[in-house]
Amino acid sequence: MDNNKGYHVAVVGATGAVGEQMLKMLEERQFPLQSLKVLASARSAGKTVQFRGQEIVIEEATPEAFEGVQIALFSAGGSVSKALAPEAAKRGAICIDNTSAFRMDPNTPLVVPEVNPEAMAEHNGIIANPNCSTIQMVAALNPLREKYGIERIIVSTYQAVSGAGAKAIQELHDQTEAIIRGNEVKKEVLPVGSLPKKHQIAFNAIPQIDVFLENGFTNEEMKMVRETKKIFSDETIAVAATCVRIPVVKGHSESVYVELKNEYDLAEVRSLLENAPGIVVQDNPEEQEYPMAIDAADKIETFVGRLRRDLDNPKGLHMWIVSDNLLKGAAWNAVQIAEELVKRNLIKES
Amino acid sequence: MDNNKGYHVAVVGATGAVGEQMLKMLEERQFPLQSLKVLASARSAGKTVQFRGQEIVIEEATPEAFEGVQIALFSAGGSVSKALAPEAAKRGAICIDNTSAFRMDPNTPLVVPEVNPEAMAEHNGIIANPNCSTIQMVAALNPLREKYGIERIIVSTYQAVSGAGAKAIQELHDQTEAIIRGNEVKKEVLPVGSLPKKHQIAFNAIPQIDVFLENGFTNEEMKMVRETKKIFSDETIAVAATCVRIPVVKGHSESVYVELKNEYDLAEVRSLLENAPGIVVQDNPEEQEYPMAIDAADKIETFVGRLRRDLDNPKGLHMWIVSDNLLKGAAWNAVQIAEELVKRNLIKES
Repeated sequence: MDNNKGYHVAVVGATGAVGEQMLKMLEERQFPLQSLKVLASARSAGKTVQFRGQEIVIEEATPEAFEGVQIALFSAGGSVSKALAPEAAKRGAICIDNTSAFRMDPNTPLVVPEVNPEAMAEHNGIIANPNCSTIQMVAALNPLREKYGIERIIVSTYQAVSGAGAKAIQELHDQTEAIIRGNEVKKEVLPVGSLPKKHQIAFNAIPQIDVFLENGFTNEEMKMVRETKKIFSDETIAVAATCVRIPVVKGHSESVYVELKNEYDLAEVRSLLENAPGIVVQDNPEEQEYPMAIDAADKIETFVGRLRRDLDNPKGLHMWIVSDNLLKGAAWNAVQIAEELVKRNLIKES
Repeated sequence: MDNNKGYHVAVVGATGAVGEQMLKMLEERQFPLQSLKVLASARSAGKTVQFRGQEIVIEEATPEAFEGVQIALFSAGGSVSKALAPEAAKRGAICIDNTSAFRMDPNTPLVVPEVNPEAMAEHNGIIANPNCSTIQMVAALNPLREKYGIERIIVSTYQAVSGAGAKAIQELHDQTEAIIRGNEVKKEVLPVGSLPKKHQIAFNAIPQIDVFLENGFTNEEMKMVRETKKIFSDETIAVAATCVRIPVVKGHSESVYVELKNEYDLAEVRSLLENAPGIVVQDNPEEQEYPMAIDAADKIETFVGRLRRDLDNPKGLHMWIVSDNLLKGAAWNAVQIAEELVKRNLIKES
């Protein structure tokens, strides 16, 4: 794993659903690596992962493990990031953190490279990756915001179980198989691992992702509200979200109503989206073409369709936004930030 | 099947997913019957169905079959209703039609008994049952409309496959089993039986229900728009819908944003809904209680939860509405109309 022109990179939490995809993205994007450290909890240390045809031994994630690391991709839970990202930053690494630990910290940039890459320059050793459901929405709305301005957003999500990790994927599979075979359904993971009550996700829709807050919204819904304002650097945009888990493995879908500040031309909206980086327009009602979770799975783009004018408000637009929550919603956005850091010469010499 | 105090009733389309539930509702509600005719296409004539422990032979649905019938419940497709409901009405029956054939006909009342029962009196032999996704929404919104007035509604639906009939239920089952077993997935029914292209519903979300119209909305979405205005007798209410099929067998869920005409008190909203007929409030975030499709299945009520204030508009309210699409969304609303006809003495002597 030597490369004269590459960087010293670490992936923290490489055994999780997102960590796996981070390794896959580094591989597929041929990210220039001089060395790759794969870090995880003491429990996973000593196991191996495959990378570019080689076996890499997982090391325990300790502060010292970050010596010499230039880029550290974190996806091992908020408490790990809180404990170790500052340690890694202290040792000169730029941390790209996929957890919510630093997202709303005013000193931490929250970045979607297509939307606010300039925010990266302000980093203090940590750059936060937004929540999956936020990333795909702001990526699709940004071209419209730049052209017309955004007054308000009302979004209802249709989120895949993989957003809750590998255990939730297994739970959907096991519950589905139990129902098909007429066996008893076990409920152990969803909707929120840390809360006492569990609900069946197979053949159901659960209107709860993450814990409830005092205002009646869930934390997932408030992440979409707060993160959207921060990424767009605009506290005046009104955002409301309803986040719902459905029995899909990969790919979040979003029904979005956006009220623009100015009247728009629908053909121009389509053209803006078609020319936007990372966006693919799939919008051909006559051919029954629109974005769907199963088609977006394993792709890095954000897919947009069902574009149509509101029937009453000439500044209102409805759209359907789908993307792979583990890729653009997590691993790809993180690796994309790393690519952008390289492009912008923001990485320190080792 | 003799009952001195009962009515002569016919069920048309008794072998379909909704027709079956109509028979079940007549049975469970102990609807006063003097006779029950079970009608279907020539293909099904001669087969039998079970009703109150007896076998009833299915007869072919012809104009003459309605002689002596006082109440005819139709759920055999729009073309059957168009051909036969006028024939039944001519012979003195009141038709309660679950298809979309007469819903927007200005001479046909479109009725949800909790909302606009008075409209029934204006019937000309036919009363239309609204679309499933409309019924549960207007049932839940009506108490708020009466108290505060409604300015606009934005709804995103999470609809069960049973809304597309028994074949769609079978397709979800077969596709799911194929995926679990690693077999090939066959796509034959969804999203729209009459259209050429089919999409996988298992582990997916399909943002198309019914055909697309020129304005980019689907017919299902426009049903929600037009029917809501007609049932509320108010063309000024702004309504926009995004209708989505998800892998659920029974029970439509709806994420609804409603902008009221006046400011409201959230405790009062809750109390209005708790006291509204046919509505059950399930809204206890601390206990992770909210309506879910699997809980609403096989129940006649409409369940409401996730009640919360919009973060920006003091007249805005978010809610989550769930009901069994085959019951309140179809068979129960139809039988409920029949009960209301009896209560209001609107049925002719035989």
